[in-house]
Amino acid sequence: MRLTDSQKQQFDRDGYLFFPGLFAPAEIKTLIDAVPALYARREVYNVREKGSEAVRTNFAAHLYSEPFARLARHPRMVEPVEDLLGEKLYMHQFKINGKQAFAGDVWQWHQDYGTWRNDDLMPTERAMNIAIFLDDVVEFNGPLMFIPGSHKRGVIDAKHDVTTTSYPLWTIGDDLIRSLVERAGDKNGGIVAPKGPRGSMLVFHSCLVHASTSNLSPWDRVSVYLSLCAVSNHIRRHKRPEYIAHRDFTPISVLPDDCLLKNYPVDLPWKQGMPASALETSLDVLPDAPPLRVAHA
Amino acid sequence: MRLTDSQKQQFDRDGYLFFPGLFAPAEIKTLIDAVPALYARREVYNVREKGSEAVRTNFAAHLYSEPFARLARHPRMVEPVEDLLGEKLYMHQFKINGKQAFAGDVWQWHQDYGTWRNDDLMPTERAMNIAIFLDDVVEFNGPLMFIPGSHKRGVIDAKHDVTTTSYPLWTIGDDLIRSLVERAGDKNGGIVAPKGPRGSMLVFHSCLVHASTSNLSPWDRVSVYLSLCAVSNHIRRHKRPEYIAHRDFTPISVLPDDCLLKNYPVDLPWKQGMPASALETSLDVLPDAPPLRVAHA
Repeated sequence: MRLTDSQKQQFDRDGYLFFPGLFAPAEIKTLIDAVPALYARREVYNVREKGSEAVRTNFAAHLYSEPFARLARHPRMVEPVEDLLGEKLYMHQFKINGKQAFAGDVWQWHQDYGTWRNDDLMPTERAMNIAIFLDDVVEFNGPLMFIPGSHKRGVIDAKHDVTTTSYPLWTIGDDLIRSLVERAGDKNGGIVAPKGPRGSMLVFHSCLVHASTSNLSPWDRVSVYLSLCAVSNHIRRHKRPEYIAHRDFTPISVLPDDCLLKNYPVDLPWKQGMPASALETSLDVLPDAPPLRVAHA
Repeated sequence: MRLTDSQKQQFDRDGYLFFPGLFAPAEIKTLIDAVPALYARREVYNVREKGSEAVRTNFAAHLYSEPFARLARHPRMVEPVEDLLGEKLYMHQFKINGKQAFAGDVWQWHQDYGTWRNDDLMPTERAMNIAIFLDDVVEFNGPLMFIPGSHKRGVIDAKHDVTTTSYPLWTIGDDLIRSLVERAGDKNGGIVAPKGPRGSMLVFHSCLVHASTSNLSPWDRVSVYLSLCAVSNHIRRHKRPEYIAHRDFTPISVLPDDCLLKNYPVDLPWKQGMPASALETSLDVLPDAPPLRVAHA
């Protein structure tokens, strides 16, 4: 699946592309069916909501779950990002975000690249986010909200929010959000929230400012969020555990297009459990690291 | 302004009526302009958001602010409710809810009558909520969400939530919300969130189940919420302070239709400050109280 010039221009302007219903219900079903068993595990890679047992984020399922390992190598997901970054990719982060019915809490406005740069020393913003909907996303179950074009602002100074929600995040100040939204059209398109059936896919720039509100509805809004990074742009520090920020920079080889319908063999390095080394962290800079380039701030 | 039979049938079925743009911008402006000075007061009737200075709710402005005193007597607001309840009305509660940009927090699913019954011993659900938008209400600034038809369920057992948000509320369990939403059409209309320009009005049944999510947008969503109660249905206990649950059961006399544009004189009993008696509370039942009727639960 390759992008058209028009799609590339749209991505450059808005910072995201939306593919409603890209994966068929039968393809998504194998993923959905695997989630409850993953969420039930009492493991450090399941981060729960404040004051609740509901899972907010499951990390690194592609290393221990066959269906998600196949999704991580799916050509419909990987190839558009290769087109946009013009390079082979590795998996920087892999999450199944719960945003569960009644319990799913707010994510404040943030850029993902801010965290990757500050924590992981990822050199530039040459990495991309992909969201794949495992549930229908509607107005009422906390859809992802974007400020179109906000990726053009480059890396934004942010403050480390460790109190508002259940997962620490580098979040952006109110005044800047206000001006970005105004520049994007204020109440006429200054914020967008793409909605669609399960199986839809969003590709968005790692500097695109996004947030999501709480889910008060009775409808789960489980999504897979993957972050694909250009291999040459791999992180230069292992300050965060490996289940959050991956350390294997091997380029992804895609499987055939029907890989969510047929049981192609996949490697599952953490199938027998996460290795102790995945929890080891360090502030050392990797020896082959070039100087950290400040993106067009 | 009188309701048509079709509007009355719609209200009976859905539990609410929506009047987009009912008040003109010039009419709303006098109200909007008065809000900041009211919110700035360090008074007990300004309830602030958890961990923030933003006002969540201002109470009883119609007793000390001229523009809001006129709104409280506006025929376009009072007459439709007289039509629905078939009786003269008094003001049970008067709030200006902030739901301010970036700071406005969640209101969990609840019925208002649950609180009025449990706390105030209001005999039946013959009271009505009115919301008047002082800001445009859009998808992103935490619009009020309704479960259409949920008023037919009558009074629902609720638990007193004093922890989730900044204002104690009798909230409803997840399983019942799920079944009410399913009965109302699930993802096809099971939840609605009427949106419209400032000056729009919502009238909704005191048993209609509603909620609203947090406001992460840069747009305030200030609304006036008034609760009009049939005079014969007045509360039988002053367990809550008077600025929250009013004790003057005098029927409202409406002003002329242009009362937000001309300075008709209005009585402002709390203009010089709230009397100390407004804070006095009691668990005694008023002497003239008939037995409390349990609504069709």
